[in-house]
Formats: sequence, C-alpha cells, structure tokens
Amino acid sequence: MATMVNAYAAHSAAEGLIPTQIERRAVGPHDVLIDIKFSGICHSDIHTVRGEWGNQNYPLVPGHEIAGIVTEVGSAITKHKLGDRVGVGCLVNSCMECENCLAGDQQFCEQSVGTYGSLDRDGSMTQGGYATHVVVDENFALNIPEGISLDVAAPLLCAGITTFSPLKHWGAGPGKKVAVVGLGGLGHMAVKLASAMGAEVTVLSQSLKKREDGLKLGASDYRATSDENTFKDLRKSFDLIINTVSASIDISSYLGLLRVNGTLVNVGAPAEPLPVNAFALIGGRRSFAGSQIGGIEETQEMLDFCAEHGIGAEIEVIDATQINEAYERVLASDVRYRFVIDTATLA
Amino acid sequence: MATMVNAYAAHSAAEGLIPTQIERRAVGPHDVLIDIKFSGICHSDIHTVRGEWGNQNYPLVPGHEIAGIVTEVGSAITKHKLGDRVGVGCLVNSCMECENCLAGDQQFCEQSVGTYGSLDRDGSMTQGGYATHVVVDENFALNIPEGISLDVAAPLLCAGITTFSPLKHWGAGPGKKVAVVGLGGLGHMAVKLASAMGAEVTVLSQSLKKREDGLKLGASDYRATSDENTFKDLRKSFDLIINTVSASIDISSYLGLLRVNGTLVNVGAPAEPLPVNAFALIGGRRSFAGSQIGGIEETQEMLDFCAEHGIGAEIEVIDATQINEAYERVLASDVRYRFVIDTATLA
Repeated sequence: MATMVNAYAAHSAAEGLIPTQIERRAVGPHDVLIDIKFSGICHSDIHTVRGEWGNQNYPLVPGHEIAGIVTEVGSAITKHKLGDRVGVGCLVNSCMECENCLAGDQQFCEQSVGTYGSLDRDGSMTQGGYATHVVVDENFALNIPEGISLDVAAPLLCAGITTFSPLKHWGAGPGKKVAVVGLGGLGHMAVKLASAMGAEVTVLSQSLKKREDGLKLGASDYRATSDENTFKDLRKSFDLIINTVSASIDISSYLGLLRVNGTLVNVGAPAEPLPVNAFALIGGRRSFAGSQIGGIEETQEMLDFCAEHGIGAEIEVIDATQINEAYERVLASDVRYRFVIDTATLA
Repeated sequence: MATMVNAYAAHSAAEGLIPTQIERRAVGPHDVLIDIKFSGICHSDIHTVRGEWGNQNYPLVPGHEIAGIVTEVGSAITKHKLGDRVGVGCLVNSCMECENCLAGDQQFCEQSVGTYGSLDRDGSMTQGGYATHVVVDENFALNIPEGISLDVAAPLLCAGITTFSPLKHWGAGPGKKVAVVGLGGLGHMAVKLASAMGAEVTVLSQSLKKREDGLKLGASDYRATSDENTFKDLRKSFDLIINTVSASIDISSYLGLLRVNGTLVNVGAPAEPLPVNAFALIGGRRSFAGSQIGGIEETQEMLDFCAEHGIGAEIEVIDATQINEAYERVLASDVRYRFVIDTATLA
C-alpha cells in the first residue's frame, strides 16, 4: 500500500522548498523501502528545482545522495535484507537490457530513470531524497560498507561516483599526474579519490583561498588559475584533468596543461558551448571528454574503495529547515564541502 | 659538398611557385641522398606558402610527401643502402631523446623539424620535396615496400599516416563502426585504411557527388551532411569519427553520431575555435580529440600495412609546370584524390 511520507519540496521554480507530504509506492516484489537517514545537497538539485534545466512538475522533491537503512523488503528480493545500510544515487531504474545496461553503464541507458523529476517506468514521477523514506528497485540500492558512516557516505552517491568514474576510466593511479579544476563538492572528492588511487594531484582553483584544505585532502600542489604563470609553469604537465566547474572556463588554455595523450574531462556542463582550439588537441593527441555519474556496479566499487581507504565526503550536517539557506550558500560557494540534511528533522 | 638542385619554390606569399635552384647539404655520416621521383601536393603546402599559418622565409620549397631512391649514403649509415626505395614525410629531424621521441611519437617532440620551412638542427632552413633531390637523416627515411609503386606511395607519407595513426590509436578494426568526414586527400585514405583494418566505414560528405567513389574505396554507406536526416538516422552509430575537414563544422552535431565511449578525432584544424556542447560529451562519455601525422616507426608500420593490403593513394600525376594550377584545383576540391608531381619534369 502506498504511504505518505514527510519531505521538503519545491512548489514552483520561483519559491523556496517547504515541508510537503508525498506518496511513496507500495513495496513491490523487487523493491526495498529505505528509511533515509541523510540526504546530500547537490548543485544540480538547485538547477533542477529552479527550472534552469528545463520545466519541471511540481511539487518536486530533490535529492539524489541518499543514505539510509532497509526497513522493508519485497517478496522476491535477493540483494538486500532488513537492516542493510544502503545508498541511492542519481538513478532508480533503467531498462537493464540495452547494450549500455549490459555493459554496466546504466547512466547511458536511454530509458534510465532519474531519482527525482523523472517519469518512472510505472508512469509516476520520481521524488528524491529530501524525505524520510524512499522505495526503490533493489538493483539501484547500493551497499554502504560498515567502514563509512551514513552522513559522509550520502554525497558519495553523486559527488563520489561522478569523480571516481572518470578517474578510473582514464587510468588515474601511481605515476599519473592529475589536476582537479575547482575545489567544491565534486572537486574535493576528486582530490581524495585520485590521491587514494596513487596519483599525484594538483588543484587548480581561482584563488589560493582553500589551499590548506586542498593539501590536507591529498593534493601535493595547489595553484591559482587567476595567476597567468600557472598556465606557463604547468604547461604539458598532466595526464588527466578533471574539470568540476560548470561555469565556462577557457578549455583551450587548460588543454595546454596536458601532456601528449592527455585528457581533460568535464563532469559539469555549462549551458553555453565551449570554444575549443583544435590545434590544442592536435598538437598532443589530446582529448576533451565528458563523463556523467557512473554505472551501478561501478558505484558499488567506489563505495568499497572509499571504505577501504577511509574516504567520506567533507560535510556540514543541516536540519531540513536550513535547506533554502543552504542553497544560497552553495550558490555562493560557501560550503566545505557538501551540505547533508539530517532527515530526522523532517519527521 | 653541398649541391644545387632543381626545385619549384614560392618567392612570396602572394605569387605562384616558379622554378628555382636550391642548395642541398653535403651527405653527412648519418644522411642519405634521395633521388626524388614523386612528390605529393598537400593542402597544408598551400596554407604554408601563402603565409596563412604564419610568416615564412622565402624562397620556400614545399612538399612533404616524398618518394624516391637512395643514391648516396653517409659513412655511418645502418638503415639504408644504395637503390633503396624510400619515402620522407612531414618530419626530417627530432631530438631523439625526449619522452615523446623515446615513445615513438616524434611528431610531438618540441624540437622536431618539419620537412620544409623549419629551422633544422644545423641552423639551416629546410626545403621540401618539390625538388629533384633531398638529403635527410637516415632515421627519417622510411622503406617503401616493393608492393607499392612510388607514385601512389608518395601521399601515404602525409595523408596516409595522418589517417592511419588515429585509426590505429582509437582501435578501428572488426566490429567497429567508423565514419570519415570529408572525402578528399585525407578522407579517401581514411576510408581505404579503416576498411582494410576491418571496420565498417561510412562517409559523411556535404553531398552525394562522390558516393560511387566512396563505396569503391571501401565504404559501406555514404551520407550527405546537407541532409538533416543524416544526423537523425545515424544518431549514436559510430565508435570513431575521423574528421578530415579543416573548415569549421558543427562538432556538437557530429558528437551526437557517436556511441557511448566514442571519439571524434580532428586531423585538420580550422583557424577559429570550434564551439563544443559539453552535454554532448557528458551524455555518452564521448571524446573530442586531435591527431597529428604519426611517429616514424608508426609510419613504417603504415607503409608495410599498405603493401600487405595493396593500398596506395588515388592520384593524378602532374608535371611541375602544373603545380600552380593544381593548387587552385585543390582549393576547389577538384582532385580525386591527390596531385603527385612527377619530379622528372623538374630536371
């Protein structure tokens, strides 16, 4: 039987989020009911609820960095049991049949279903993690290993996998030099993960304001991109650059920081096209690439990797009543490094 | 002793090429003297002599698609002997010590020396292949296998390696779908090579004018990019796209033709930056890359591959007196598919 649960929802693109009751579907044979403990705030939540990425259906409950406990399981469940510590990221469904799903790249399935604001396969609209409970197909609930507490685990489900996936795909590891552009929610995870993978990590940030943090997180160098010398000094230095900044940056300048065969990967996307100087690509067999979250198996691998290396997000836990204020602080880059809602405050 | 040889040279950016005598250095211990038989005309020759890629020293003899016979060898030569059939491409020197040279990527050596219009390591300016003879370091003369006649071999030294290298680097082969944008000097080689590698090849050309040629060269499909349906029909079709067009094309539209993990490689570079929609990259872990000729060992591998598969360029042999007319025809895309100068007409 469907149940009503407490949540925080946007009721229009123009207004803040308010307490709202939403319906969660009955637990189906392959579903788990999760008692959400913590829910991270991702910059994309803000873009979405404000209609900046297209029109939305309201009320809309955002949140795709979910960590909680399984409190009910469907009759045909094989992967989870009552009491399991689990996480849900950006996806809650996919076709499981196409070549991308079969390759473990569910994020590229044309029928994948986002955790909120998406049409689910049963015709309902999905609602996200700023809520006390969620019901999801068991395949889209990941195990959070004992080594990671649920609060710092929540942001791993988006910020973690979004940076882990390209780092792994493009071979970050010992002997590789990786630069991370931007030290925010995604960037701080990229630094922790790349460093744990054994790569030598440099942060490229507008200013040196967060330098101490960057070094503590695992970077061995930290440079200001407002300083022109940075682009001279670090010319042809990196094997991989992870660009976490979704504002427009001068891609061609950053391409000049890559060694031969190097790759610059965008994990964010500005609305405007980015001008790319083809000579910067051709002159070093360089690539400008993009990456989007990660697959389900890969997300589990990331969680296991984080547990093994003692990695969680750097967080500031907030009450639900602080969500709207937190949004303003995210937009002002005033967060080190992720807001996480204590969903007990929704009850 | 340095000798004077017959050549065709530009004497300014504004005028056509005329018969000119140039000096070739004495054959050093590690050099070979090559009696040039054929010299291809590359579009970049035109850009260079006309000063479109920066100011030049005149007189300037272009030509980096050279095929001929070794007629003198230096005292310390180990790789070639008198009578060898050899080719020279875009490079005549490099440091041989940097990480790129050691990796076989001499094209990315910061001290590499272009075949014409470049400052050589001895302080002289290099002069290219529109001449009866050339003296080069033996490491930069490649063996042309018996299976390929010298006239159709000449263009392999630039057009061949420029397309072979990215096809090989990005894994063109059986089970892979490759698109080639533009059916000109580079494009027709890309079709032949990708097809010989076992890939399924589609040509994407402005019109269907050269369709019959494209299919004969090895493509299994040929589509007009002026037809909007092409971009709908072929959405998410290709593993690899080789863009041989150096005019600005709408990169983001072409990225939409790539499958997940696909790569679009530019082998030409327009002067203006190309706007790239980051969503097109992110939504399929796609890459926009560049590639520039190839390394020396790789060029030999390409020549051996061509001999094995009976591949040469499609050419139109011309007399030296026709060079200026040929330039106009190249600019008008009126060549199928490469002009090759019979250098006997220079004598």
